[in-house]
Amino acid sequence: MSQAATISDVAPRDGLQSIGGFVPTETKIALVRAIHAAGIRRMEIGSFVSPRAVPQMADTGEVLRAALELPGLECTVLVPNRRGFELAAGSGAQRLGLFMSATESHNKANLNRTREESFADLAAIVADARAAGLLVRFNLSTVFHCPFEGVVPDEEALDWVERIVALDPAMEIALCDTTGNAAPDQVRRVFQKAFASWGERFAFHGHDTYGMGVANVSAAWAAGCRVFDSASGGLGGCPFAPGATGNVATEDVAWLFRRMGVETGIDWNRLLEAADLAATIPGGMPGGRMRGVPAARRAA
Amino acid sequence: MSQAATISDVAPRDGLQSIGGFVPTETKIALVRAIHAAGIRRMEIGSFVSPRAVPQMADTGEVLRAALELPGLECTVLVPNRRGFELAAGSGAQRLGLFMSATESHNKANLNRTREESFADLAAIVADARAAGLLVRFNLSTVFHCPFEGVVPDEEALDWVERIVALDPAMEIALCDTTGNAAPDQVRRVFQKAFASWGERFAFHGHDTYGMGVANVSAAWAAGCRVFDSASGGLGGCPFAPGATGNVATEDVAWLFRRMGVETGIDWNRLLEAADLAATIPGGMPGGRMRGVPAARRAA
Repeated sequence: MSQAATISDVAPRDGLQSIGGFVPTETKIALVRAIHAAGIRRMEIGSFVSPRAVPQMADTGEVLRAALELPGLECTVLVPNRRGFELAAGSGAQRLGLFMSATESHNKANLNRTREESFADLAAIVADARAAGLLVRFNLSTVFHCPFEGVVPDEEALDWVERIVALDPAMEIALCDTTGNAAPDQVRRVFQKAFASWGERFAFHGHDTYGMGVANVSAAWAAGCRVFDSASGGLGGCPFAPGATGNVATEDVAWLFRRMGVETGIDWNRLLEAADLAATIPGGMPGGRMRGVPAARRAA
Repeated sequence: MSQAATISDVAPRDGLQSIGGFVPTETKIALVRAIHAAGIRRMEIGSFVSPRAVPQMADTGEVLRAALELPGLECTVLVPNRRGFELAAGSGAQRLGLFMSATESHNKANLNRTREESFADLAAIVADARAAGLLVRFNLSTVFHCPFEGVVPDEEALDWVERIVALDPAMEIALCDTTGNAAPDQVRRVFQKAFASWGERFAFHGHDTYGMGVANVSAAWAAGCRVFDSASGGLGGCPFAPGATGNVATEDVAWLFRRMGVETGIDWNRLLEAADLAATIPGGMPGGRMRGVPAARRAA
């Protein structure tokens, strides 16, 4: 298998979305540019969601236009529904991010509909995206652990994966550890089952709420995963739950891969600059470990 | 293989040793008692080293006497040389901790002698310890990475492991990530080779300097390792290198095993009390992640 990993930085969307105060558009664009300057070539830029529901993402179109000027960058925008798809399809974004949950209670709490309803809506969007020549990332949340139902049985999650796979043989599917509660042996086992059944199309989206983020990335890698979501600066914590850090930090994942000799295309020093920029955005809840390591040591 | 892990808490020795000001004996004893109250049944209590060289360990005999009163606790004391062995042999400690480095430059810098010289001294101590009916833990430092030589080739480390194994077929040998620079794939590979060649006698001693500690523990576990060193509160950082955290935190390792369904015998809430106690010792450099997670979340 490949000794290269692709990192999709989700700081501009997943990292910033939960910040209460509006992050200025110029700040968002500066963050996108800094992450791109570090050599990262995939990013989750924003979300075409109702500005009333998620005011932080109201300027996604403008951030996206700036991102599309950056050479070689593949831009993902989240699309929660048909209206979002229509906005995204004309936006220039190369990839649409769709999402539903593997557990019924989380899907209802997060999306206010049943999994069957979400799946039917998203299946139609997948077909239309394919017809429009757009790439799709299908994010399946709560694959490993659900805040309402606890540990998710492998088969419950994999039954949904199987239905999603059937929609499009080339579509990338992310198995998401939404709560940060996945255990490395579970991550490894579920990815092994997915790869054994449906080939190399799976990405891992991990959170670092309990400090297991890097261990889970490592476990997914060991099972064959080669595409990972992470956020520069470890952004994505919830400001209303101090200490509950967010997405696994890009700089921590990049360090892991540096030590393992896995190619990521990342300029390490510039990535630390992007991480520092991300971590100083007012209202954000940064996380991760590498920013706290003294400069002399983290250059090793 | 067993779904139980043994944790040896090294906070009283490895965690406290680098603190500049003397930690009062009563504080050390309180820490030992708190860790024992959490259900941990192995601990690195102290070191029979020259008080001039390591003043922090001058009261090891007194701390050990208190530790030996705790039911079911196996106490390890470090023994750097023949003089240390003579003190330890009459101390009541059940296990002696010996140590040398897998790399020549680190052995010379740390112990002021060649590896051959260290090995010869320690071989004699192993024989005498066996004759005295004492358990031995042989710690091999810099197995994965050396601060002077960088990444250590597997075979260089394993050649020394082979010689150590030959000293005593029942002795526990720890493969130590002294700098925190080991990569999980390297840890997994080296442990797999060791287990394949010499059976189930190996322990992992990891540091969390770069946030890889839990990932490395997880990798060692996946390779079959069942004995782990860690320090409550993530103690063990160097006070002269801010941000350079020390031993992987016992509470982080315990959380990993909780999520994986691995039995450790630990009382989770009491372990967090021990971790909080460790982290508040003046002059210490605590680390780890679980102490920072809000109480409502870390009870999950």
